[in-house]
Amino acid sequence: GIKKGLIYLKGGEDRNIYDADTEHLFRQESYFNWTFGVREAGWFGAIDIETGKSTLFMPRLPQAYAVWMGSIRPPSHFLEKYGTDCVMFVDEIKNFIAENKETIYTLNGLNYDSKLQSVCEATEHLGDKTVNNEALHPIITECRVFKTETESKVLREVCRVSSDAHKAAMKACKPEMMEYQLESTLLHHVYFHGQNRLPAYGTIIGSGPNAAVLHYGHAGAPNDRQMQDGDMVLIDFGGDYNGYAADITTTFPVNGKFAEKQKTIYNIVLNTFNTVKAAMKPGVSYVEVHRLALRTHLEGLVKAGLLRGDVDEMMDVKLGAVFQPHGLGHFIGLNVHDVGAGPRNAEFPTLRCPRVLEKGMYLTAEPGMYFINPLLDAALANPEQAKFMNTDLIESYRGFGGVRLEDEIMIVEGGIESYTDVPRTVEEIEAFMA
Amino acid sequence: GIKKGLIYLKGGEDRNIYDADTEHLFRQESYFNWTFGVREAGWFGAIDIETGKSTLFMPRLPQAYAVWMGSIRPPSHFLEKYGTDCVMFVDEIKNFIAENKETIYTLNGLNYDSKLQSVCEATEHLGDKTVNNEALHPIITECRVFKTETESKVLREVCRVSSDAHKAAMKACKPEMMEYQLESTLLHHVYFHGQNRLPAYGTIIGSGPNAAVLHYGHAGAPNDRQMQDGDMVLIDFGGDYNGYAADITTTFPVNGKFAEKQKTIYNIVLNTFNTVKAAMKPGVSYVEVHRLALRTHLEGLVKAGLLRGDVDEMMDVKLGAVFQPHGLGHFIGLNVHDVGAGPRNAEFPTLRCPRVLEKGMYLTAEPGMYFINPLLDAALANPEQAKFMNTDLIESYRGFGGVRLEDEIMIVEGGIESYTDVPRTVEEIEAFMA
Ligand SMILES: [Mn+2]
Ligand SMILES: [Mn+2]
Repeated sequence: GIKKGLIYLKGGEDRNIYDADTEHLFRQESYFNWTFGVREAGWFGAIDIETGKSTLFMPRLPQAYAVWMGSIRPPSHFLEKYGTDCVMFVDEIKNFIAENKETIYTLNGLNYDSKLQSVCEATEHLGDKTVNNEALHPIITECRVFKTETESKVLREVCRVSSDAHKAAMKACKPEMMEYQLESTLLHHVYFHGQNRLPAYGTIIGSGPNAAVLHYGHAGAPNDRQMQDGDMVLIDFGGDYNGYAADITTTFPVNGKFAEKQKTIYNIVLNTFNTVKAAMKPGVSYVEVHRLALRTHLEGLVKAGLLRGDVDEMMDVKLGAVFQPHGLGHFIGLNVHDVGAGPRNAEFPTLRCPRVLEKGMYLTAEPGMYFINPLLDAALANPEQAKFMNTDLIESYRGFGGVRLEDEIMIVEGGIESYTDVPRTVEEIEAFMA
Repeated sequence: GIKKGLIYLKGGEDRNIYDADTEHLFRQESYFNWTFGVREAGWFGAIDIETGKSTLFMPRLPQAYAVWMGSIRPPSHFLEKYGTDCVMFVDEIKNFIAENKETIYTLNGLNYDSKLQSVCEATEHLGDKTVNNEALHPIITECRVFKTETESKVLREVCRVSSDAHKAAMKACKPEMMEYQLESTLLHHVYFHGQNRLPAYGTIIGSGPNAAVLHYGHAGAPNDRQMQDGDMVLIDFGGDYNGYAADITTTFPVNGKFAEKQKTIYNIVLNTFNTVKAAMKPGVSYVEVHRLALRTHLEGLVKAGLLRGDVDEMMDVKLGAVFQPHGLGHFIGLNVHDVGAGPRNAEFPTLRCPRVLEKGMYLTAEPGMYFINPLLDAALANPEQAKFMNTDLIESYRGFGGVRLEDEIMIVEGGIESYTDVPRTVEEIEAFMA
């Protein structure tokens, strides 16, 4: 391992909204947050590898700050708040770096989900020092995969409040409401109860056919449909607490009572959900759990009459991905799609987390089943897949939307612990919404 | 004027949050929104100056979009939605520009509030064409200053719902609530009632002494104080509707009943508020209205015994800026600090809008009075200012916080029309909160 050197990181900066004098709400960059926990913009930080001594560098604020932004707090305030060994000013970094005699390790690397390079790399003030920008990224990334006791407390808390937000939406939901009114209800719940102003990711409130639009809720489809009596609604929402994400999906009938077809698909997904959770434990590859989800889905569809034939043969022609095109789950932590999952698996390229499960990993399990027109069209046009499909019955599900159930799960000794707590069975949901 | 040529603009793009695969909620760039009204990211637009013919260029979406993001809508859909003469694809711009024979006008210029350059300048695909990047910016900017009938309808609507949000906060407010719980109440109100997910700017909920921190509510001071019985709270909040901003400030007692000192300062500010609104009309310089505000403030402070002496002499030594360091108001429209106000006035550099008022201008009037320690200290240490100050009485107001009242105002024939509708007098507020 590396025994000497200086880790040198750059925190997030404020970003204006275009050329206006308004700014995006500040969110600390995740690697910097993980390392130092600093809430403010424009900081740097360093850690001496040999001694473990940590130093933060804060911006030196102008006197006008005291009039417009509030009291100017001294380094001693932040020393107390962030618990590093030392707090200095950003304008002192140059000398600090100049005095350092060892290699400087900066953070440069790829995010496999966004395909973007790290933005936490500090390139300022390095002068002619020896810099290594490759060694650090994989090490911190792997550290972030395994959650500490303190992190797990925060994750429990964000998951608890977001579970309650889903329950508040179930209670508030009724026909003729707009999808965004449920989103507003969820956002209000988490912020009112002390979590972040911004959720962990773009909220999906897909009612009726919109439940089959996997990333519904973006600017071009902003949760603006009026929910109808007889629809189901799929809510994929999670709050943010100290930078840690929640990510929970519920699906339920807008009017509180499942129709027969809804019950059929819902119970297939619920059975898959319970099956994969029972299979998750240290030593099991998540690729195999994903495979199990697809197989259990197909068995459910056979039992319900939508498919007929041999499930092994269906697996060979990838029929599962017609009904669940996305992966079973992903790491979660400071990012909703957390780092450390590595490159994708060639067999299941949409599975974000193709790793063997280990104790302390924290991830989602989110089986879903959807009736997506272009995927159904392609499957029905492909004789290898179409031969298993009960066309008449499947056609009757066009426009049905879909069902997804998503928990957040800690891998523990011998199994899992789910931090999510929402009504899940048909009976529980109907009773809760009654 | 310019008779021929092609106006060529670039719309806003999606922005990732650092290197993560989450994005900032998309908000269209204001110049592009004003010109074309497009809600989606990644568009371009052009207008032929001679014929007025308008063309939009939309991204060509991959087939996977239909699975993940929703139906791929054809140009005809957006032709209907946005009412331009033509909708083409972004990959067709290159030929479109190559066929153009006239000068191409792109948008480059300074935002006086942020000091940033325009980001709506389209530099792609220009090849060796003649480009003018200077003429367009001042022309569109001045067009944006004068609101059309349609714009005024939208501004009325965003202001109406944001006024109601302030009223909802007044009704919800009680001692021991957290400041952010009022913010959450306001945000929920506007989004639940069909406006944008994001407010027009960072919400300020300054209770007790925090009311004197002019830009309170940022990441370093995130509205996280518990409000106490006996505090006042200052709320500066506005929603966003179709990209148009609201900007309203109310100040009221957390427990619904004004204490005597609170009444004193509140009524000084209310009198200034009414005085400046009565003075605003076409032909009047807003610099003079700002001066009137400071003078009326000082007269009020003399009457209340906090100052003594000649108000003209106080104006000469700029005593008004000790109690109201900010300008009286600003243009508002697609930006909360809207464009077109031009460079600042040398006498009052914090006044954002040093222009002569004209019919169709839309701006805020927001007198405020604050007890800000570093400003009081500086004034008391300056004999030219200190001689007017009743030190004992002023000292008793340290920690008081402050009061600001802000309306949005349309300049009409002979006067103004306020679009804001919230309780304003002590009696109205106490009755409303009872
Ligand atoms: Mn998820
Ligand atoms: Mn304002």
